[in-house]
Amino acid sequence: MDLHDLTRRLFVKNGTKIVLYVGDGLGGLPQAPGGLTELETARTPNLDALAKAGILGGSVPVLPGISPGSGPGHLALFGYDPLQYVIGRGALEATGIGFDLAENDVAIRANFCTLDSAGNITDRRAGRIATEKSAVLAVKLATVSIPGVEVFVEPVKEHRFVVVIRGPGLNDNVRDTDPQRTGVPPLEPVATDKASEKTAEVARQFVTQARKLLADQPHANGVTLRGFSGQPKLPSCEEVYGLRAAAIAVYPMYKGLARLVGMQIVGQPQTLDEQMTLLEQNWKKYDFFFIHYKYTDSTGEDGDFAAKVQRTEEFDAAVPRITALKPDVLVVTGDHSTPAMLKSHSWHPVPTLLAAKNCRTDACETFGERECLRGGLGQFEAKHLMTLALANAGRLGKYGA
Amino acid sequence: MDLHDLTRRLFVKNGTKIVLYVGDGLGGLPQAPGGLTELETARTPNLDALAKAGILGGSVPVLPGISPGSGPGHLALFGYDPLQYVIGRGALEATGIGFDLAENDVAIRANFCTLDSAGNITDRRAGRIATEKSAVLAVKLATVSIPGVEVFVEPVKEHRFVVVIRGPGLNDNVRDTDPQRTGVPPLEPVATDKASEKTAEVARQFVTQARKLLADQPHANGVTLRGFSGQPKLPSCEEVYGLRAAAIAVYPMYKGLARLVGMQIVGQPQTLDEQMTLLEQNWKKYDFFFIHYKYTDSTGEDGDFAAKVQRTEEFDAAVPRITALKPDVLVVTGDHSTPAMLKSHSWHPVPTLLAAKNCRTDACETFGERECLRGGLGQFEAKHLMTLALANAGRLGKYGA
Repeated sequence: MDLHDLTRRLFVKNGTKIVLYVGDGLGGLPQAPGGLTELETARTPNLDALAKAGILGGSVPVLPGISPGSGPGHLALFGYDPLQYVIGRGALEATGIGFDLAENDVAIRANFCTLDSAGNITDRRAGRIATEKSAVLAVKLATVSIPGVEVFVEPVKEHRFVVVIRGPGLNDNVRDTDPQRTGVPPLEPVATDKASEKTAEVARQFVTQARKLLADQPHANGVTLRGFSGQPKLPSCEEVYGLRAAAIAVYPMYKGLARLVGMQIVGQPQTLDEQMTLLEQNWKKYDFFFIHYKYTDSTGEDGDFAAKVQRTEEFDAAVPRITALKPDVLVVTGDHSTPAMLKSHSWHPVPTLLAAKNCRTDACETFGERECLRGGLGQFEAKHLMTLALANAGRLGKYGA
Repeated sequence: MDLHDLTRRLFVKNGTKIVLYVGDGLGGLPQAPGGLTELETARTPNLDALAKAGILGGSVPVLPGISPGSGPGHLALFGYDPLQYVIGRGALEATGIGFDLAENDVAIRANFCTLDSAGNITDRRAGRIATEKSAVLAVKLATVSIPGVEVFVEPVKEHRFVVVIRGPGLNDNVRDTDPQRTGVPPLEPVATDKASEKTAEVARQFVTQARKLLADQPHANGVTLRGFSGQPKLPSCEEVYGLRAAAIAVYPMYKGLARLVGMQIVGQPQTLDEQMTLLEQNWKKYDFFFIHYKYTDSTGEDGDFAAKVQRTEEFDAAVPRITALKPDVLVVTGDHSTPAMLKSHSWHPVPTLLAAKNCRTDACETFGERECLRGGLGQFEAKHLMTLALANAGRLGKYGA
């Protein structure tokens, strides 16, 4: 069952406004059994007021027990089944650095590695070369020239970079060249179908030229290529929901994910304050606003409980600028949990709040993990949040007569 | 979406231990409206302590309203979609008596019936012949000899027995011979595909020889054959979860179901006490332990509320021997509910408890049906329990980047 088969048939357009306010990695865990989570610890008077007026629940990003990456986590919030829409590693990496993939591009996630004189890998990450050094080398590799195609090389972090090949006749079914171990040479790029043979040949030429350009490097004298993938094909928010959607985000990854579903990227904000200003300035131009806040996740990843609490309070403090605009539907949630105790994304349901005139409020008084357990939304797969938001905005017609 | 496509890609191995402690038919109903269920009536201090520390919920064995047999109930607990993996009736019956089906065997669920002089069925169950009589007849039928195949005949209970055919060129697409009514003769075994014609021919010869061997019987003078089925093909726990799994069960059916998913059958315990001793003795050798306790179901089937309460207390009393081993994840649940009031398996959600360090505990204080309703696991399809257990054991990587 494709949810969009339903929404395409049922959506109606009106003048309502929906805001999806995402605290990345919002859910958490207590520091000790019986204690409070980061969100429960934080003073969040604005979110608590919304919780009182709205309806709460726990959203399961993918399926019970599955910890999602940022890609599946956000696709689910946008109403795109994260098991149906899989974004290849190369494409996600390109998306993450804000590289705008064109229709027939092939994106590749590449690593610098160290080769010995026999051509065998001695370090798959080139000694975790520093970003400032590897960025220079990536720029150097951008001078590679292969007839018939354009080649883009973009630095990422440490040993990682992205290669994008653009030109006619490319396809992405090419095997990884990283052998996943040392003591052996990188594998040859091998096409697994005929339509991808040109891509494999371009990749071979890229590797050969890269080896020459890197020959004098002590550590980063080789490259491996992984996750060959084309531009992800996702239907747009406009097409499946009838929404003119805007994304107001600081980090390239989230702008990239929003762009994949046809959202307009609004401005180049650096702070939450600037994001809210952009929201106000663009209020009339769009039906739907995705606002992304990163630091509830990054502090969780750092394992810094207190910092996550503080960042959650900042996330809360910006709420009045949203509510002042009187959105018809305001959804507050995360793309997954990132408990400081785990220092990583987790599988735990994400505290979720939906405030709207006809949401049928529940008995919840505050916004937190335990309170969400008694919420009226129950526990639900995150991919259903978008239809709930549309319904509350009066933007979904009746199914069947 | 096949859950195992996900788990295969995401599982990681580590040194954690998972225990799945199953009280068969654990869930129940009060004797009168407003009363307590069997589990709520029972004194279960050990399970209550786990409930306080862990996270509770209600597992739906198959789908809302569907009462499962033991096969689907357990497959779901093992994380195998009970609607995807269907075990044929013959194979389940063979599994239930501990018959170890080989790869190309065909198992058949057979009934003794009564035929009149014209060959028409007058009683489809041979007057519900007593087990001690039918067992003797089954042994007699084992003397059937058919060229080119081996034939095994195993008694079950009352009028039921199992026939297993072993040999080259057999397939299981053969129609039932039970006409489901009296006054007509048994049907001929008919193959519904070419590859099953040999099986149908063997079945015809079996019926002919059986009729001769049973000619002098007053009631059990005929046989009908149903549920022709080959060895169920299920991927193993090792392959889909990376788990070395052990089953510690008393009854053949549950050993058989565990064997179908590649669990090792440990020992031949006769009591819960012996099961716990086997758990202790094998603790280092496996990652995952399935412990099956039968009597919460059989007392429910008997309609004996008080006996089910007592058996539930015995089930609880063994818990300290599990927790003493400090499993990383302990799941306590049932494969379905068996309310004494209904004397049968039912569709009601099953009280479920998961105790693990990072489970994100809820407000629940005791282990019982009503308390589970406010549990942090919510209500969920039982097939998701295994991924939850794996996640809590740190045995599942992130989905997507």
